Amino acid sequence: MSVLNIIKIGGNIIDDPVQLDAFLEKFSALSGRKILVHGGGKIATRIAADLGIEAKMVEGRRITDAPMLDVVTMVYAGLTNKNVVAQLQKHNCDAIGLCGADANVIKAVKRPVREIDYGFAGDILADSINTLAIKKLLEAEFTPVFSAITHNGLGQLLNTNADTIASSLAVALSQVYEVSLIYCFEKNGVLLDVNNDQSVIETIRAQEFQQLKDNQVIHDGMIPKLQNAFDAIAKGVSNVYIGNANNLHLYQQRKFGTCLIA
Amino acid sequence: MSVLNIIKIGGNIIDDPVQLDAFLEKFSALSGRKILVHGGGKIATRIAADLGIEAKMVEGRRITDAPMLDVVTMVYAGLTNKNVVAQLQKHNCDAIGLCGADANVIKAVKRPVREIDYGFAGDILADSINTLAIKKLLEAEFTPVFSAITHNGLGQLLNTNADTIASSLAVALSQVYEVSLIYCFEKNGVLLDVNNDQSVIETIRAQEFQQLKDNQVIHDGMIPKLQNAFDAIAKGVSNVYIGNANNLHLYQQRKFGTCLIA
Repeated sequence: MSVLNIIKIGGNIIDDPVQLDAFLEKFSALSGRKILVHGGGKIATRIAADLGIEAKMVEGRRITDAPMLDVVTMVYAGLTNKNVVAQLQKHNCDAIGLCGADANVIKAVKRPVREIDYGFAGDILADSINTLAIKKLLEAEFTPVFSAITHNGLGQLLNTNADTIASSLAVALSQVYEVSLIYCFEKNGVLLDVNNDQSVIETIRAQEFQQLKDNQVIHDGMIPKLQNAFDAIAKGVSNVYIGNANNLHLYQQRKFGTCLIA
Repeated sequence: MSVLNIIKIGGNIIDDPVQLDAFLEKFSALSGRKILVHGGGKIATRIAADLGIEAKMVEGRRITDAPMLDVVTMVYAGLTNKNVVAQLQKHNCDAIGLCGADANVIKAVKRPVREIDYGFAGDILADSINTLAIKKLLEAEFTPVFSAITHNGLGQLLNTNADTIASSLAVALSQVYEVSLIYCFEKNGVLLDVNNDQSVIETIRAQEFQQLKDNQVIHDGMIPKLQNAFDAIAKGVSNVYIGNANNLHLYQQRKFGTCLIA
């Protein structure tokens, strides 16, 4: 199977134009088939505030009511996605920006209302990813760039977590490619000592993860991220990397962040 | 050569959700290869006003300063384009939304500053259209949906007139397809009597156009539209239709609006 790298960048890089352009240049330089998934950043919150739309949060999670859905659609799938694509084209990467409705690439379901009504939040199911359509784009030598907007197939756009999109794409596409999933964030990797940015753990195997959790070596905030990564590996993803966006140019030299494997 | 229909819808349909959905259902039902180009509508002006951004006009033309470029990118390439694509997917049309930066489909140049500085307005040149990329998408059986945002290849997004995008696409793609260009608007076609909506002229040949102008039969406002259409025909487009968006279902029965031919 051919190799496919799926790279996720978070909102803090999106919010910093200089860092973002440096990152996109490094992303463009990666050889082979690749996909970019980007988070939202703070722009949506700022524009919502400027439009007098109140950001509603319940237990740290954003509630996507209809006005907020319009804002995140404008910002994530419009302003951010198109500027990222234009920058990538500048760096000779033949990017094509997508939300889940485009080519029907990701069909999510509106989160059922239980104790909390999350509004237009889209949950990804096992069959949400249109592997065939994404493969067509990749084989046509385009580089898909995903924003965190999906649709339900019935005309309704939905807001979906970008980390979830990245891992769901990785799992689904591992049926047709040898997939590496690369989470770029502001730390150098998973750290043995949270206060020492040089204490990066090079490799963590699934069985070691349990040990590291038991011994409380891994910082609490990292545990859900790593758990999701190992879940993706259990479902067919070859490996997951977690590292600093500024170091992405070291990835193909295998000197990037922490590598998680089965 | 295979047939390709390029359909342009204007802002007044975009602004009316009920009319828009009816139109998109008819568009979805058209058989064969097709492209949709959509204008902007009044949403961008409203959102700009809500954000405290003043719409600058000179001689009836919008000046796209940096804040306004962000707004039109959000609205045209985000909110409008993604909602149109989601509706088309609902109607089983495998739409993929594009701005000019996506797959580098349209590379425009920033309008040179002479008497007026139009800001981030993008002019389309003879080699602006990436025929190969659009052909790849069409042959992969996607239906491209173009918003009126382009890029300059150097990372800068630009605002470009949607009518111009439609005719430029038609001319460029007539090298590889037998192209019909269909302008949908609120009238039934080119009218012999502007006050009688039933007085549609069925066919106008290029040589008749000059006569109709000389005899002042054609309403002034229609002349630039028709001139552009005949220019496109002179450059290889097979024919141009002008008719009512509500009648698009009659197009493949050849009962739609006015047909302009060489």
